[in-house]
Amino acid sequence: MDSIKYLSQEEAINVDKKLFSEYKFSVDQLMELAGLSVATAIAKAYPIAHLTSRDVLVVCGPGNNGGDGLVCARHLAAFGYRPRVFYPRRTKRELYTNLVAQCEASGIPFAAEMPAAADVDAAYGVVVDALFGFSFAPPVREEFVGIMEMLRSVEVPVCSVDVPSGWDVERGDTAGDGLHPSMLVSLTAPKLCARGFAGRHHYLGGRFLPRRLAAEYDIVLPPYPGTEQCVELPVAAGKQ
Amino acid sequence: MDSIKYLSQEEAINVDKKLFSEYKFSVDQLMELAGLSVATAIAKAYPIAHLTSRDVLVVCGPGNNGGDGLVCARHLAAFGYRPRVFYPRRTKRELYTNLVAQCEASGIPFAAEMPAAADVDAAYGVVVDALFGFSFAPPVREEFVGIMEMLRSVEVPVCSVDVPSGWDVERGDTAGDGLHPSMLVSLTAPKLCARGFAGRHHYLGGRFLPRRLAAEYDIVLPPYPGTEQCVELPVAAGKQ
Repeated sequence: MDSIKYLSQEEAINVDKKLFSEYKFSVDQLMELAGLSVATAIAKAYPIAHLTSRDVLVVCGPGNNGGDGLVCARHLAAFGYRPRVFYPRRTKRELYTNLVAQCEASGIPFAAEMPAAADVDAAYGVVVDALFGFSFAPPVREEFVGIMEMLRSVEVPVCSVDVPSGWDVERGDTAGDGLHPSMLVSLTAPKLCARGFAGRHHYLGGRFLPRRLAAEYDIVLPPYPGTEQCVELPVAAGKQ
Repeated sequence: MDSIKYLSQEEAINVDKKLFSEYKFSVDQLMELAGLSVATAIAKAYPIAHLTSRDVLVVCGPGNNGGDGLVCARHLAAFGYRPRVFYPRRTKRELYTNLVAQCEASGIPFAAEMPAAADVDAAYGVVVDALFGFSFAPPVREEFVGIMEMLRSVEVPVCSVDVPSGWDVERGDTAGDGLHPSMLVSLTAPKLCARGFAGRHHYLGGRFLPRRLAAEYDIVLPPYPGTEQCVELPVAAGKQ
């Protein structure tokens, strides 16, 4: 029996909705905490001192997962990394244009073109996959196929935000074209697909789930240590 | 010569304005990071294991300082403290009603009446002073005189958010009726009055100042260690 609760896609969507409606959080607040927790987890799993390059490529998709990536990039810069963002399909909403402006004001460059996998391996220490999150359903849209191919090819560690891009949120890499990242940061609670994650580092972040909401969905999670914004989880693959 | 930059009131107000206008942050974002940093600093200075009671009284004023207090209370609850909020003059704006709802959803009670100082000392381990911030100018308004009196009388440690309430932001406790807290968490950068802070713990929090903005105001601050959201500062009183 799992001592950790894994959310179905429907549960993930409903918990998210309730955080904003019933629990009155703003997207700004939770995205800030989520992105901060991803950056913190990356700093734990891949400390600058252990990397050949402190450059981090942050690949952002058009939705909230991409927003988490933009926040993560800003905090990575504060932690001493040198993030560069690739954000090919920008969202026009004010929250997103503001997140971009905040990155720019923090001196974070935006890549105009998708770098080739070999160039990524040559220049970067870590890649953040903030393409698709818990609302994704395969197949990957045409315009993202090239990016997915690049991300599948890189050899430097890839850290996926919440869900490895391309995966079915419950069943994993059913289409066979998903990423197989070295690191996964599950946000709020792991999704069912995380049971098939076989990378090196699995973290939980997004420390903002109110106890009442956790109870309503029978969400059991390991306690965060002290004031930490993330907690390492055992890699569950094979233990189902 | 100070190696830390202390802001005048005008500088503090202008830096704050620029964060929202030029740097495109939302109040939600920065208040979240500010409140988180205050809660984190309290957990460092007054860890639960060292307290006779994990109950924390959080006294919130009507402005942004009170909002920081509400966020701080929520994170303190996540860290295992038992906060209770006293918030006598509530702000009607949605941000604030939402912050209250988030606290309530996290099981944080709101005190209907101001507790007497003796009762505070009997029941609480720490008190958070989130009454007035960097836009305050003495004298204290009539309706807050009783609360200030109570806060001056308690013997448990008081932690002031950004500015000890009642102090002139630049010159300190000029009116003679300000608080003299055990702990001060300066947000973004210390204000001039912090040079006269003579309590035990001085922390810096609000890790969100973009480098370009820091440079514009010649703001020199000690580096935050690793992924920490706060950093301890030397207590400067007497060293002017």
